[in-house]
Amino acid sequence: MTTLNPQRTIDELRELRSLTGDANGAQRLCWTPTWARARAWFKQKLDALPIQVETDEAGNLWATLPGRSAQTLVMGSHLDSVTNGGWLDGSLGVLGGLEVLRRIASEGTPPVTVRLVDWADEEGARFATGCFGSGMATGHRDASALRHLTDADGRRKEDVLREHGVDLGRAHLAARHLQNVAAYLELHIEQGPALEGLNLPLGVVTGTFGIEKHLITFDGLASHAGATPMTHRHDAFLAAARFSLAAREIAIQHGGVTTTGRIFNTPNQSSVIAGQTALVIDQRVFDEAALVAMLRDAKAVCEHICQQEKVSATWQNVMRVDVARFDPHLQKLGDEAVREVCGMSHHLPSGALHDASEVARFGVPTVMLFAQSLRGLSHNKDEDTREEHLALAVSALDKLASKTIAWLAQK
Amino acid sequence: MTTLNPQRTIDELRELRSLTGDANGAQRLCWTPTWARARAWFKQKLDALPIQVETDEAGNLWATLPGRSAQTLVMGSHLDSVTNGGWLDGSLGVLGGLEVLRRIASEGTPPVTVRLVDWADEEGARFATGCFGSGMATGHRDASALRHLTDADGRRKEDVLREHGVDLGRAHLAARHLQNVAAYLELHIEQGPALEGLNLPLGVVTGTFGIEKHLITFDGLASHAGATPMTHRHDAFLAAARFSLAAREIAIQHGGVTTTGRIFNTPNQSSVIAGQTALVIDQRVFDEAALVAMLRDAKAVCEHICQQEKVSATWQNVMRVDVARFDPHLQKLGDEAVREVCGMSHHLPSGALHDASEVARFGVPTVMLFAQSLRGLSHNKDEDTREEHLALAVSALDKLASKTIAWLAQK
Repeated sequence: MTTLNPQRTIDELRELRSLTGDANGAQRLCWTPTWARARAWFKQKLDALPIQVETDEAGNLWATLPGRSAQTLVMGSHLDSVTNGGWLDGSLGVLGGLEVLRRIASEGTPPVTVRLVDWADEEGARFATGCFGSGMATGHRDASALRHLTDADGRRKEDVLREHGVDLGRAHLAARHLQNVAAYLELHIEQGPALEGLNLPLGVVTGTFGIEKHLITFDGLASHAGATPMTHRHDAFLAAARFSLAAREIAIQHGGVTTTGRIFNTPNQSSVIAGQTALVIDQRVFDEAALVAMLRDAKAVCEHICQQEKVSATWQNVMRVDVARFDPHLQKLGDEAVREVCGMSHHLPSGALHDASEVARFGVPTVMLFAQSLRGLSHNKDEDTREEHLALAVSALDKLASKTIAWLAQK
Repeated sequence: MTTLNPQRTIDELRELRSLTGDANGAQRLCWTPTWARARAWFKQKLDALPIQVETDEAGNLWATLPGRSAQTLVMGSHLDSVTNGGWLDGSLGVLGGLEVLRRIASEGTPPVTVRLVDWADEEGARFATGCFGSGMATGHRDASALRHLTDADGRRKEDVLREHGVDLGRAHLAARHLQNVAAYLELHIEQGPALEGLNLPLGVVTGTFGIEKHLITFDGLASHAGATPMTHRHDAFLAAARFSLAAREIAIQHGGVTTTGRIFNTPNQSSVIAGQTALVIDQRVFDEAALVAMLRDAKAVCEHICQQEKVSATWQNVMRVDVARFDPHLQKLGDEAVREVCGMSHHLPSGALHDASEVARFGVPTVMLFAQSLRGLSHNKDEDTREEHLALAVSALDKLASKTIAWLAQK
């Protein structure tokens, strides 16, 4: 029998970092040779176990330890990263899950089937659409809408995926892997400052925020920065600036978050008043009614600002994701597991989306565990978590997996 | 004797537009083949006159009608345009000056020398530094600071200018052309809405605004749009947005104009709070003390906003231009000329810089005439002026030239 060895997970995370990172951080951008290298390395690790390994139609990698029942527990996360990403985002869940699978496999045939999944393209960093693999398996993504997406080099998603063995026309067939799945567990770093602020190593996640993302294009009139009096301006950028600040106030009022992180200014010359400014507004909150209200208020304030600034605005929906609420019983088991390994627990929602959001919204009882992030940083080479917290996280996932198997076995 | 024929100027403006424009507007970007084509076409026009034509060390084209005295009246403007520019910006002054020169030349040797100059690279559209030719001639530009500027394709200014016969190390020698210059006249379109608002065809320009242009870099912290609570953000873009709005209020308080038309946002992803936002602030006003106050107030409000937004900002001066005040006596002569051709006159300062600003600040008595711009548009294919106003403008320049010659001759 193999004892759970969380230090091995830390060592493997470091090994993966050396293999697929550089001075700027992790480079496991999905559908690239570096990502494929991470996958090949991971498969070698799996080959040492008495399990079946296969890649599905959407590019998700499944490792299966058959149990006495077809009823299935899935642990999962993702090996892919953003460009210049962190060493833990996604890979902690996959390699932590690997360690737990080792421990379970060493104990013989489990009462239920246990699977580990490395979802494909959670980050969506190359084609700007995340949770691809889990989204295809759950039927939440429409392949026809993705086919013509292009990357920064103008390469089509369809062509790039084909090079990695994925036919977009067949990717929805990955859905068969969610048959018999009775529970889904995902360990992930928090990517925010809550646990660090509370001085807690681990937390149990209650669900993920709903999201409204819109591209708003403000149309003003490009004119000369010197020759146009302040009274005669139709300044698209200042309208966008006012709107961004108002959208922040709306987020605060409704207990959510709002970000305007993507801006395109035209003609973007210092001597010319902006004729057109486009921005993406990203609104998130853990409450469906509040999400509706945030969007309604943002549209109203946008109209008001446009009138005052003598510009116009058009809205285009870019993304709409429902709130995902995790399973109450699995949250309770997660709470027990966290208390057993570190004495105290905490429940918190996730502002970031995860593959777990897709699985939960598909109807599979789901829960996530969060490990504390230092300074709340992620998608960044400085992303980090204390080693002792990483070890506690793997132990907590292990205990949660045991409790979940026992729960499923008695259901 | 040739009678002044303003219709010929309109015809020649159209001819130039056909030769050097396309569906997107004028394409006489300085130091390009299209600009060289405009110059060659213009030289052919000059060849018909009994004058000397030469190009100086800074690429300025001078046409000289020697007078009975070395004391010199210069009329001038520029043939170069921005990319996708208008048909009148600059070329009205050059071709209007050509028509006046024709009339004067036809009357025999004038009492003072009369010259027409087509300044090189007024727009600065390719290397982001305007009034090159007039700036070199007046000693207001430092060639060593310009040598390493590159265009959008990474080509060095030094190399590009050499292809057009300009050696940056010798460009300052153009200064010899300002010896003996006793008056400088420039006709230009207003590029703003003032004359149209007053329903006046022409105006006399009192001078040009002083300018402070700074690149401000706001440094915050890039973090996750979902996982970072509103209370934990260091949002560089929102700081820049607040600052831009505050800078507008400062401009209004001091009777100036301020524009934030150039923005660079990093990493510029919709799911990431802006870690760094850089913008250029362009502050202009027709009063030195007000310009100092506008800059002081902007720096103070920037510091205040940075404290509140928990970001930092660094300022880098990009451009500082003093207020240029045009000659009172030439303004009086301009006023007479405008009244004679259209019955009413108006005095107004220019928020846009012109070659006349360089010449005036060099100490040459200077004045400009403005022709009304429709909708205040310029640097734009839709830039336009009524034909009757163009004709009145050429006539007014002609009368102003006559009055100025008489004034200089009796001095």
